[in-house]
Amino acid sequence: MSPDRFQSPLPASATFTVPGEWVEFGSDRPLPLDCGAVLTPFTIAYRSYGTLAPDRRNAILVCHALTGDQFVADTHPVTAKPGWWEDMVGPGRIIDTDRFFVICCNVLGGCMGSTGPRATNPATGKPWGLDFPVTTIPDMVRAQAMLIDHLGIDRLFAVIGGSMGAMQVLEWAARYPERLFAACPIAGASRHTAQNIAFHEVGRQAVMADPDWQNGHYYASGAVPERGLAVARMAAHVTYLSETALHRKFGRELQDRQGLSFGFEADFQVESYLRHQGRAFVQRFDANSYLYLTRAMDYFDLERDHGKPLAEVFRDTPVRFCIMSFSGDWLFPTAESRRITHALNAAGANVSFVEIQSDKGHDAFLLDEPEFFRVLQGFLAGAEIAWATEGATASAGGGA
Amino acid sequence: MSPDRFQSPLPASATFTVPGEWVEFGSDRPLPLDCGAVLTPFTIAYRSYGTLAPDRRNAILVCHALTGDQFVADTHPVTAKPGWWEDMVGPGRIIDTDRFFVICCNVLGGCMGSTGPRATNPATGKPWGLDFPVTTIPDMVRAQAMLIDHLGIDRLFAVIGGSMGAMQVLEWAARYPERLFAACPIAGASRHTAQNIAFHEVGRQAVMADPDWQNGHYYASGAVPERGLAVARMAAHVTYLSETALHRKFGRELQDRQGLSFGFEADFQVESYLRHQGRAFVQRFDANSYLYLTRAMDYFDLERDHGKPLAEVFRDTPVRFCIMSFSGDWLFPTAESRRITHALNAAGANVSFVEIQSDKGHDAFLLDEPEFFRVLQGFLAGAEIAWATEGATASAGGGA
Repeated sequence: MSPDRFQSPLPASATFTVPGEWVEFGSDRPLPLDCGAVLTPFTIAYRSYGTLAPDRRNAILVCHALTGDQFVADTHPVTAKPGWWEDMVGPGRIIDTDRFFVICCNVLGGCMGSTGPRATNPATGKPWGLDFPVTTIPDMVRAQAMLIDHLGIDRLFAVIGGSMGAMQVLEWAARYPERLFAACPIAGASRHTAQNIAFHEVGRQAVMADPDWQNGHYYASGAVPERGLAVARMAAHVTYLSETALHRKFGRELQDRQGLSFGFEADFQVESYLRHQGRAFVQRFDANSYLYLTRAMDYFDLERDHGKPLAEVFRDTPVRFCIMSFSGDWLFPTAESRRITHALNAAGANVSFVEIQSDKGHDAFLLDEPEFFRVLQGFLAGAEIAWATEGATASAGGGA
Repeated sequence: MSPDRFQSPLPASATFTVPGEWVEFGSDRPLPLDCGAVLTPFTIAYRSYGTLAPDRRNAILVCHALTGDQFVADTHPVTAKPGWWEDMVGPGRIIDTDRFFVICCNVLGGCMGSTGPRATNPATGKPWGLDFPVTTIPDMVRAQAMLIDHLGIDRLFAVIGGSMGAMQVLEWAARYPERLFAACPIAGASRHTAQNIAFHEVGRQAVMADPDWQNGHYYASGAVPERGLAVARMAAHVTYLSETALHRKFGRELQDRQGLSFGFEADFQVESYLRHQGRAFVQRFDANSYLYLTRAMDYFDLERDHGKPLAEVFRDTPVRFCIMSFSGDWLFPTAESRRITHALNAAGANVSFVEIQSDKGHDAFLLDEPEFFRVLQGFLAGAEIAWATEGATASAGGGA
């Protein structure tokens, strides 16, 4: 069975099959979920770049953020835009696909080929809609681990991701410490804050307020809650940027006009920009997936999920960490990354922590920030040497 | 003609006449607007507290914020809640109604009796809706000055307000420096920032995305865009609080449940709180007024409106200023108040500036913050002495 065809929310768009790789986990490999349900069968769609080495020790898993997907380093099949992290991942880049085998999968609950609310519920033959079980960050990671098993990879060199991706990285390190050598949670947090839950709830309410949402069962109706989803995206987008970045980029500049219109058109450039962001988003994203993935982030709380204090979650972890935050990020502020770092220090972990000076807001992790790139490059270079040494020792030991 | 009856957006609610005072400005007193239109007739609804002294020198004008109204110090006629600034205004309070005559009028474009989009368009006999001219902060202040004229008050002792109220205070001082002795803009700015315009645009888009909005002509339909307006309110409400306040108040505490629901109900207290804020707001506020008033704030820019740098706007002003900001306010941050203070210093003005230490966010100006109260009390006490001295000098001069 091929992964679900992606039905663009815009009625005029054609359907198409999501390009890239995918694996279907049948009834022999069910996925137990945190909510208590068991998901089977299910599909994980992914992209891989580079070649897996014969010793299978050159694999890096990249985890995408809330509205990201598996198209890290190649053209997006819906938007035709470059991959979301092409500056970072590719031949000769920091995450060098000439040497590493880079995997990125669409998260469980997503809408780019992995099973989510838009997929077919085998019990009814119709799209799940809101009958899809609420999935969590640990559920996503459990599915990713099954994919890594499927690819025959015992241990990943690194797991790297920003924002919701950082949550997955932390869960990987907490749940499967023996299965990854290095972890890079960027602009992340060990639990979603009240303010972030609040902003997500605004977005969900915007989607659910749209009559076209139809309690989540809109797929067969020909209508999609695009107005509500656009508002949700606009609200979220403001939180991804800093006040400084917005001021520098737009200020109070007017859009294609000499004076105020004294109306409700987009007088200001910042309004025009936001409207564009909303419109563009609904062409590539499923509204129900937006509900599910924001919910997964809100639910994320490493201490609650693992039933112990953060330092105990990581007690004597063999994983080496590179924690990064951005000074201008008010959504996932440095204090959250520092909190993780303190716990890792208390746990006796090998941890580097760097706050990157940037006034670009949360989105800085997606941008070409030289200091950020240098820090990650340095960390990976050091980790690679240690990883090779460990590999050589292990081989020597095996041969003795 | 009595002011427009307030039709609560909730269909089940009864209509009622807005209590308090009001004045209708007929065709002999038209209001020229910044957009070029002339508004006539129009009504300004207001509340007054205390008694105007025989010499008419004890009047204080309080300017309300975006979703405030004239019910500063008495029970709100829709919500039955105490006045929005009862801690500050009343007998024996900081703004002492035993000594001062305190006036607060519903702003032009509002929905509590003053003329706005919900009022009747005399040309059609139907509600204005989106045909109502887009009004500005200077338009609001011009209408307030007409009210002050009507009350026979030559010069106000003080004009005081927070947030959008602070914008009105600044415009009063800039436009009519000879008509007020003291000005207290609290948690304000001399122009709306890009980030604030962005958040307002999200709110407007939420309202306009609601099919019940019907391009603003919903009044006769029996339906009101309450879902869109609730989302707008929720989004705005998050911005009125600080991350610290949200964390302290709610954290990740669950609402009336032991564990996560794995659904889309309000699991977290912060979600439940926000939903309540949205629901409560639509019972007392008109969606079109929300569009108009947010637009007025977005348009506000003292330098553009007056065609000169801020320091020139206030050059040699006789007004004495008390500028206040709150350290935890990220919506109208201290930097904006400091910018005004610097300009006033450059203009040679008499200005006090105090940043109040508070982690409660923008809403701090509505809360019982002891340091804030002490600063305002101290400023008013000093200003009152100077004002009395000036009055005595003027009387003596007049008698010579």
